Amino acid sequence: MVRADKIILAASICMSLLTTSAMAMSKPVTIEDQGSFMAGGTVVTSPGTYDGTKPMSHDGETLHGDHAYVFYQKPVKAHKNSMVFLHGYGQSSKTWESTPDGRDGFQNIFLEKGYKTYLVDEPRRGKAGRSTVPTTISAQPDDQLWFNTFRIGQWPNYYENAAVPKDKESLDQFFREMTPDTGSFNEQVVADAMAAVFEKSGDGVLVTHSAGGGPGWATAMRTAKVRGIIALEPGTFPFPQGEVPATEATSSPFPASGEAVPMDEFMKLTKIPIVVYFGDNIPTEPTENWGQDNWRVRLKLAKKWEAVMKKYGGDVTVVSLPDIGIKGNTHFMMADLNNEQVADAMEKWMKKKGLAE
Amino acid sequence: MVRADKIILAASICMSLLTTSAMAMSKPVTIEDQGSFMAGGTVVTSPGTYDGTKPMSHDGETLHGDHAYVFYQKPVKAHKNSMVFLHGYGQSSKTWESTPDGRDGFQNIFLEKGYKTYLVDEPRRGKAGRSTVPTTISAQPDDQLWFNTFRIGQWPNYYENAAVPKDKESLDQFFREMTPDTGSFNEQVVADAMAAVFEKSGDGVLVTHSAGGGPGWATAMRTAKVRGIIALEPGTFPFPQGEVPATEATSSPFPASGEAVPMDEFMKLTKIPIVVYFGDNIPTEPTENWGQDNWRVRLKLAKKWEAVMKKYGGDVTVVSLPDIGIKGNTHFMMADLNNEQVADAMEKWMKKKGLAE
Repeated sequence: MVRADKIILAASICMSLLTTSAMAMSKPVTIEDQGSFMAGGTVVTSPGTYDGTKPMSHDGETLHGDHAYVFYQKPVKAHKNSMVFLHGYGQSSKTWESTPDGRDGFQNIFLEKGYKTYLVDEPRRGKAGRSTVPTTISAQPDDQLWFNTFRIGQWPNYYENAAVPKDKESLDQFFREMTPDTGSFNEQVVADAMAAVFEKSGDGVLVTHSAGGGPGWATAMRTAKVRGIIALEPGTFPFPQGEVPATEATSSPFPASGEAVPMDEFMKLTKIPIVVYFGDNIPTEPTENWGQDNWRVRLKLAKKWEAVMKKYGGDVTVVSLPDIGIKGNTHFMMADLNNEQVADAMEKWMKKKGLAE
Repeated sequence: MVRADKIILAASICMSLLTTSAMAMSKPVTIEDQGSFMAGGTVVTSPGTYDGTKPMSHDGETLHGDHAYVFYQKPVKAHKNSMVFLHGYGQSSKTWESTPDGRDGFQNIFLEKGYKTYLVDEPRRGKAGRSTVPTTISAQPDDQLWFNTFRIGQWPNYYENAAVPKDKESLDQFFREMTPDTGSFNEQVVADAMAAVFEKSGDGVLVTHSAGGGPGWATAMRTAKVRGIIALEPGTFPFPQGEVPATEATSSPFPASGEAVPMDEFMKLTKIPIVVYFGDNIPTEPTENWGQDNWRVRLKLAKKWEAVMKKYGGDVTVVSLPDIGIKGNTHFMMADLNNEQVADAMEKWMKKKGLAE
């Protein structure tokens, strides 16, 4: 009977481990400090003179807007450099939290690795919703546009090798991560706020995703506290004025164009190590599969940018994950089933560049 | 010299303690699990048939919206009951995080007390921004309207006894917590999503603030997993049909009206313990100070509601904090300088009602 008890006990421990690995942090983390703050932003004032007897007149009232929102956590015995995470289009800091199927996202994975994490909602998005400019939100259904553009598959089919959970509930959670702009997107407004984030985080590695790539490059041009950049499938790249490549034709509704910046700004990027990761299912030849073609032209632009950066002494590596044996990644590699492998590749690069101190 | 060294050491420890109490968690917390998820919501579909060759047509595409966003943390050896926090008007879950001057908010305070915390962004707010209905966001400056309505003072003057930091930077952080609706506020939509939050949190105490009060009462009518409610200055109260008091005149632009609900729904609230807290600087007589008068009529309505609830067997206590020796509280008692005292009063009540197990 002792033997049966032991088997039951062992089975029960296994069940508990399975539950833990599927739905919870892989190990407890002791947090020394955590909290949130707003960074950067501006203040606008209504015309007229404030009159405290007229609550709804708004004459002379102020609005504080265009700041970033940041949630930070500091584990005990943390590495010196912070990790600052900036989401992409239509997303918020949710991008880096639990995956759609409830596994650890990069927030937990890097905490578990001992890094201070700073998760940002960019200005005019999420909990940083207060904008100095008005806007209209359409509530236009467009889930399928993003399913294809994010290279999960061609609706309603998943790519066979896609490293994502293919159950209905996980897809439901994924679609609900989308959240609208509460004011028009402005790369300079985002970069200004991000520079203020780094004043609070201190020296760190900036991790950007997708449309966060553009303001990410601009952030590193504003502050030397960005010690390195990890860009996950960035949407665009900055080139010196006069060296922006022609925009390549694509079947995607979102063309990939380089951005022109003054040479002295461009040169700032050559002073820090940068790695760019692209996932799987990105073709090399033009295709009518516009979800894939969107990334074909971006990966091609990335390689042109890598060449120009290297010409000016930059330290840039553009990595296609399948080339290093990490397969099936969608545009959301931080949430894919193999996200721990992706995180390991990132940390390996950080260690090589002296950023994991 | 030893003596001088000791003094320097003691001074250094004091400085360190001061820094810690001002800017960090009061003690490290070991987190067994943390993460985020979306709860509830609905799906709408565009008319027409989806055509994968036309990415921008949107015919037959879906939109997943009207869910709540939740960030949860589970400390080791946690109490059985969860604590679920629902913000008020113009706010997000930021309400419960770090205070404007960087001290622990209720998120950290209750984690440190060993509670599982669930911080919610209601549907159509913050990171739960995806709405099934369109909207327009005006970017109308109105900081001063809220400064007065939130009983911090009469702009530009703070109430002398206001338990808030009175430096410019803290006020800047406070104003930036405001974030707009990304779809019209709908109490039933919020309550539906909140009931789904409790399916994930399990049995717990619901803590509501201000305009979160209305959907909070409605949540407890939907699920028995709400084991008790702590309502911080709720904006409204539900009465049995036919027993809603007349709306009292007020100099505030926001009248306080009771809501009529069917008797069987009302009766559900009489089955759980409820405490309602109001802060300081709430007058008993009508006043042209509309920021204060806004709360005079609400506190009066709360007391009428308490009487009706008791008539039907309910367990409700309406507490004015100054009456129990907690002074100077604004509408944001979870962030005021004495917020630990407020949290202690809440926990004392929870223990008395068997909710702190």
